[in-house]
Amino acid sequence: MESYPSRLLESAVAELSKLPGLGRKTALRLALHLLRQDETQSEALGTSLIRLRKEIQYCKRCFNISDTEVCSICSDSHRDNGIICVVEDIRDVMAIENTGQFRGRYFVLGGLISPLHGIGPDDINVKKLISQMQSKDISELVLALAATVEGDSTSFYIFRQLRDKPITISVIPRGISIGDELEYMDEVTLGRSILARIPYESSLQMK
Amino acid sequence: MESYPSRLLESAVAELSKLPGLGRKTALRLALHLLRQDETQSEALGTSLIRLRKEIQYCKRCFNISDTEVCSICSDSHRDNGIICVVEDIRDVMAIENTGQFRGRYFVLGGLISPLHGIGPDDINVKKLISQMQSKDISELVLALAATVEGDSTSFYIFRQLRDKPITISVIPRGISIGDELEYMDEVTLGRSILARIPYESSLQMK
Repeated sequence: MESYPSRLLESAVAELSKLPGLGRKTALRLALHLLRQDETQSEALGTSLIRLRKEIQYCKRCFNISDTEVCSICSDSHRDNGIICVVEDIRDVMAIENTGQFRGRYFVLGGLISPLHGIGPDDINVKKLISQMQSKDISELVLALAATVEGDSTSFYIFRQLRDKPITISVIPRGISIGDELEYMDEVTLGRSILARIPYESSLQMK
Repeated sequence: MESYPSRLLESAVAELSKLPGLGRKTALRLALHLLRQDETQSEALGTSLIRLRKEIQYCKRCFNISDTEVCSICSDSHRDNGIICVVEDIRDVMAIENTGQFRGRYFVLGGLISPLHGIGPDDINVKKLISQMQSKDISELVLALAATVEGDSTSFYIFRQLRDKPITISVIPRGISIGDELEYMDEVTLGRSILARIPYESSLQMK
């Protein structure tokens, strides 16, 4: 442990290096950078981080981060309330919104089921999702979770809870990235995409 | 530019991504991490960054960062006041202190002369260094600056200002890193280290 010439510096480095991916060297570099900037910059940064956690709200309907009780997507009357896309966190909402290809609503789980990390169904919003699915208005649930053990387990949990309901449960396909060459695909994805092959004509309609 | 579902989140991401080396994706990941942590963590981080810049002091003597008017190194009566080591910033002080090989004092320039970046002698503490060197107590100045154009220019500027004074001006040698093999040295360092060769016997005394 290095010794810092100032407790103020030591405290800033200690707090910064609690952030994921920031070691003490990087934290020190960032702290020294802030010291060279105008006081307004560290003031703005510090205040925004404090306010972020203290004042943030989550949409009551989809659990997306929001400045209002119901987020702008859920309150948009032009969106299809009958299709719900289930995602892990708000970055996924932003990523799908950026594609401009989805006009339904979202449901943010806030995590994935992971027995290995002690995360069960009660630790994420999955039960709130199941209870929302009692609504007659919803016709389709799109599972857009990570292609990992945790994502697959969570998708399967949701599927099991809802398979007797009159809801179409779909999932985003695992396949080759557009622009990628076959030889660079991992064999699991390649194998799955061969099994999950679709009629060529239907693929043309997606372009 | 991506659109964020909350102005609070947008502001936190904008402020975080002003830090060097942090892009907007990393900033978003850090902000979402803070949202998953207890409120005390973002409170502590934000407060420490604000206090760091607002309350930091610099040692009146060596310009190192300090919690007191004169830093703990300058006020340590066991250190040799006759040898001053000139460094660029406080990270260099920490690095040299960690070696345990230097018992003199420091002088922190707070930057290097760099005409290319519009940084002249008046933008760093170099003139305060020159005026401190009028003291009769100081016998040696050790230049421990970066082995770059800027470091070399700054060293040469200081040397020119002080060469008529009765002070020994020394510089840390450029050479091979301990544990390194010759074939991986860059040729400039290798060439310099051959020119600056020292008697083998004197090298034995350093071990």
